Amino acid sequence: MPDGSPIFLDHSTTTPLAPAVFAAMRPYYEERFAVASGQYAAARQARKDIEAAREQLAGLLGCRPAELIFTSGGTEAANLAIRGVAEASRRRGDHIITTQIEHRCVLDTCQALERQGYRVTYLPVDAAGRVDLDALDHALDARTILVAVMLANNEVGTLQPIAEVVRRVKARSRAIPVYTDAAIAGGVLDLHVDRLGVDLLSLSAHKVYGPRGVGLLYARRLVQLTPQIVGGNQERGRRAGTEYVAGIVGMAKAFELAYQDLDARRAHLQRLMQRLLDGLLERVPETVLVGPQAMEERLPHVATLCFRYIDGEAMVLNLDVQGIAAASGSACASATFDPSHVLRAMGVPKELAHGNLRLGLGIDNTDDEIDRALEIIPRVVQRLREISPLGRA
Amino acid sequence: MPDGSPIFLDHSTTTPLAPAVFAAMRPYYEERFAVASGQYAAARQARKDIEAAREQLAGLLGCRPAELIFTSGGTEAANLAIRGVAEASRRRGDHIITTQIEHRCVLDTCQALERQGYRVTYLPVDAAGRVDLDALDHALDARTILVAVMLANNEVGTLQPIAEVVRRVKARSRAIPVYTDAAIAGGVLDLHVDRLGVDLLSLSAHKVYGPRGVGLLYARRLVQLTPQIVGGNQERGRRAGTEYVAGIVGMAKAFELAYQDLDARRAHLQRLMQRLLDGLLERVPETVLVGPQAMEERLPHVATLCFRYIDGEAMVLNLDVQGIAAASGSACASATFDPSHVLRAMGVPKELAHGNLRLGLGIDNTDDEIDRALEIIPRVVQRLREISPLGRA
Repeated sequence: MPDGSPIFLDHSTTTPLAPAVFAAMRPYYEERFAVASGQYAAARQARKDIEAAREQLAGLLGCRPAELIFTSGGTEAANLAIRGVAEASRRRGDHIITTQIEHRCVLDTCQALERQGYRVTYLPVDAAGRVDLDALDHALDARTILVAVMLANNEVGTLQPIAEVVRRVKARSRAIPVYTDAAIAGGVLDLHVDRLGVDLLSLSAHKVYGPRGVGLLYARRLVQLTPQIVGGNQERGRRAGTEYVAGIVGMAKAFELAYQDLDARRAHLQRLMQRLLDGLLERVPETVLVGPQAMEERLPHVATLCFRYIDGEAMVLNLDVQGIAAASGSACASATFDPSHVLRAMGVPKELAHGNLRLGLGIDNTDDEIDRALEIIPRVVQRLREISPLGRA
Repeated sequence: MPDGSPIFLDHSTTTPLAPAVFAAMRPYYEERFAVASGQYAAARQARKDIEAAREQLAGLLGCRPAELIFTSGGTEAANLAIRGVAEASRRRGDHIITTQIEHRCVLDTCQALERQGYRVTYLPVDAAGRVDLDALDHALDARTILVAVMLANNEVGTLQPIAEVVRRVKARSRAIPVYTDAAIAGGVLDLHVDRLGVDLLSLSAHKVYGPRGVGLLYARRLVQLTPQIVGGNQERGRRAGTEYVAGIVGMAKAFELAYQDLDARRAHLQRLMQRLLDGLLERVPETVLVGPQAMEERLPHVATLCFRYIDGEAMVLNLDVQGIAAASGSACASATFDPSHVLRAMGVPKELAHGNLRLGLGIDNTDDEIDRALEIIPRVVQRLREISPLGRA
């Protein structure tokens, strides 16, 4: 970003649309408006364009194109994965296993299913935010129909041992599908479904410099899935509604850009994140980096720091005035008082969690922005501590 | 459209994006990428922009802004209306009334609910495609929780007597909500919810020269609605998922353009449609205009003609070669063999329904295009009849 404009450190909430992605989408806004369902040339072209996007994403995930379902976003994809499997499996069982640190789109769907008579086990995590695998073994039972564990946590960045989750679930029964919410991992982690071993995986385009309003669910061929939005043959009858062709094409383009350049992107993000974390931990006393301390155990671009004795909301508002756009707690839940269900599950004391700052770096962030952030954030924290009603004991 | 490019007569399936709408959306693709949930300036701006769009659409519908829920499209909005009310009302009742001529997004949702133990009455229609009001009276019972009747039919254009539907439902019980699918009526009919008397109303942006991937559900204040996509506080907790801000702003702009210009648009569409229908009925023998014969009883831009002795799909493929993009049957159902559940419900004989051509005119269609269509369509029909295996007896 040019000097003077805000430093955007909330990339785990959303990312700017890449200009090359917008360029790929524009024809669909300006000329190619046809839907895919018609029997004329323009409609055939729309079908071709959608299928080309699907094939490209299938290449990235190492799956069949027919195993991908385009949705309106990561949230809808997560709802479809969990509710779709739960409803289709009702005769086989009623038990779902997930973790306490999932995104709300997973947790709220599970809670809605609980109200309908399903049983849900919410696995605990350790202090670093890693799912408790022994608790998983213990929870699996003959009525388990789904295990949902995110690929990495969207607030603290902890990578989850998904291959080990899959191994333990399949050791119990190959018929239990494993779903992973990979929204925050898109564009930074390997998404190859066979290497991961998962049966369902959801993605969001706008977390990867793609458009808003489009996401994806991978569902392995034999996984039974009850459609959640019905009323048309789109997506092989698994998700009705006129296709958002521009968005689908844009999503494929965004992921193409991210993965052709993966190593460089990761290295850039990791380097900036290391500088930012080291600098803040050094300059601001009584600060804790939650989650794993080793960079290789975390997402390169997401981290949460907790500054003792301050209020995260006040910090974020003050940072905004100083030209830094950042988040505290889970942005999607920022209307609630609980700072973060993730930090609570990790056992972070409430008074510490209260001062959490979630940092989400993006590929456009620069060293200069990190320098400025390292000036501004410590100053804001210090001022807040001076006036804080939460002041040290 | 310039001379030489295809004549697009499938506007009831989708419409091109108005350039002014795209202009309103572009800033969100190029700069304003923030989501609405953050605590920084850009996020506040996104919230403001969404709420301005909501207020504008609320003005058009004559409702409170808080009564509008943005969705990913008309199909999702219809699913949310029906399933949302059905699930929220399960203790009060289990009976839904709809018509045999609804769009598949309504019919398929009702059928899914039947599989879950709800009862659904599908009201018959008369030969013109108007819902049978006596059958409605007869169907209403103490366990009825929802009545769903579309504002106008999307295949044959028949206006439904929605005010009379509302009167009869409310005479039975004021507690039974009336939902109307207004997707095809957007941009051509009055959508004021108090004048219509309805409690729920759904719209799609891309039917009104707006963007794909966004729609709207109006739900009157006291209507209980169980959210269908959960996992965030967006849309007051009634529809989770990061907001597609560009789409929401574009939808408001599209409806603003349509309604500030409503009379002129309607007059233009009606005049072209009258010319097209009169010309085809005059030039092609053994042709039937299904639905009401009087223009004031139909949508100005949607009509179905049935040409005896030909196959609709073959006609559409031949028209495509001749430079006309048109549809036969319901485009969303064109993978099925049944030409149209709407024509079947209206009692159109199968051999006649088989040769149906659905005409959807748009504001960009010109007199010159109608002239060309009046040359091409009769020629195509005649040729198909000459080689038709369905040939006259």
